[in-house]
Amino acid sequence: MPQGKPTVVPEDGLTTRQRRNRAVLAVHTGRGKGKSTAAFGLALRGWNQGWDIGVFQFVKSAKWKVGEESVLTRLGQLHEETGEGGPVEWHKMGSGWSWTRSSEGEDTEARHAADAREGWEEIKRRLAGERHDLYVLDEFAYPMKWGWVDVDDVVATLRDRPGRQHVVITGRDADPRLIEVADLVTEMTKIKHPMDAGQKGQRGIEW
Amino acid sequence: MPQGKPTVVPEDGLTTRQRRNRAVLAVHTGRGKGKSTAAFGLALRGWNQGWDIGVFQFVKSAKWKVGEESVLTRLGQLHEETGEGGPVEWHKMGSGWSWTRSSEGEDTEARHAADAREGWEEIKRRLAGERHDLYVLDEFAYPMKWGWVDVDDVVATLRDRPGRQHVVITGRDADPRLIEVADLVTEMTKIKHPMDAGQKGQRGIEW
Repeated sequence: MPQGKPTVVPEDGLTTRQRRNRAVLAVHTGRGKGKSTAAFGLALRGWNQGWDIGVFQFVKSAKWKVGEESVLTRLGQLHEETGEGGPVEWHKMGSGWSWTRSSEGEDTEARHAADAREGWEEIKRRLAGERHDLYVLDEFAYPMKWGWVDVDDVVATLRDRPGRQHVVITGRDADPRLIEVADLVTEMTKIKHPMDAGQKGQRGIEW
Repeated sequence: MPQGKPTVVPEDGLTTRQRRNRAVLAVHTGRGKGKSTAAFGLALRGWNQGWDIGVFQFVKSAKWKVGEESVLTRLGQLHEETGEGGPVEWHKMGSGWSWTRSSEGEDTEARHAADAREGWEEIKRRLAGERHDLYVLDEFAYPMKWGWVDVDDVVATLRDRPGRQHVVITGRDADPRLIEVADLVTEMTKIKHPMDAGQKGQRGIEW
């Protein structure tokens, strides 16, 4: 997108520079593809700026997004080796999180809900401590939709987060309250998909 | 997106495996953000699979997408150094292309149109020679829209391309003939953008 003039100059008492440097809360929603891919693309850019990147995947599947995980963790390693870019942490909910030992127990919905809440509590702690420059909360729209986390708590925490921490949240059916506080909301709409024509997902394109 | 069953099984005489391995022509269009970012995210995945990646940027601006360019060319270099991932070539139209010496002359529309046609002719040669596994034709919807390249030629060339070469085309207002032959079309719709609230683009988020 070409750089443009803002269409409205708000009366918020901020200079253009202050406004420009404000942290962004972005939401990628809709039923189309590219929600997560575009979020990881932002992480790629952020890494290149030297940002500290934290990815939190609120999904069970191990297969999806292994490409992004592989490349971004490799870039984080490159940062440790050569100082290029920024550090990268990649956390998956899977069976519990890497920082918990909650991988015991049955694979029930109550369990997934508890894991999602634990993930959100950790993110809250990190936001309070200004731990990362960019948080990718991948598929986090779902735990919000399913009531696994308190939407009002999420919205208030994100709205009032300290410092300059960017946050990107992905997933279908983003809650209207989240959209309300977000700065940048993009809806990805499916116009045409190979599965409609009987084609299954393939390596490199789908994961 | 979770992996699913195809909704239709086509009578094309192909096995599921053959269909799965068919090359994909994807289009990212619409007025929202994330079209290019998601395309570069696909390149990231492809790199991780060891694919040979060719990026062709049909835009003049040097500022946009420097993050993606920096990271993807770094990954290509990493491939040369360590054998990880795949090779990456990144070509920008700018004032002519890297393989031409057309940077002389005035900065006119006729000149840009000629540069765009030259870019497309090179892509045709590469498609015929099965040079890359994934082609990112960034902002290529515009030269198509503006009549700088022959849309019917583009569509026929892409439809009949040999081997297994994936192509992703980005840009607003994708031509209906392109959408017709594409396998995967996603429209990115702007719901909310910081510029609406008087915020200008910022490093890391916009480029």
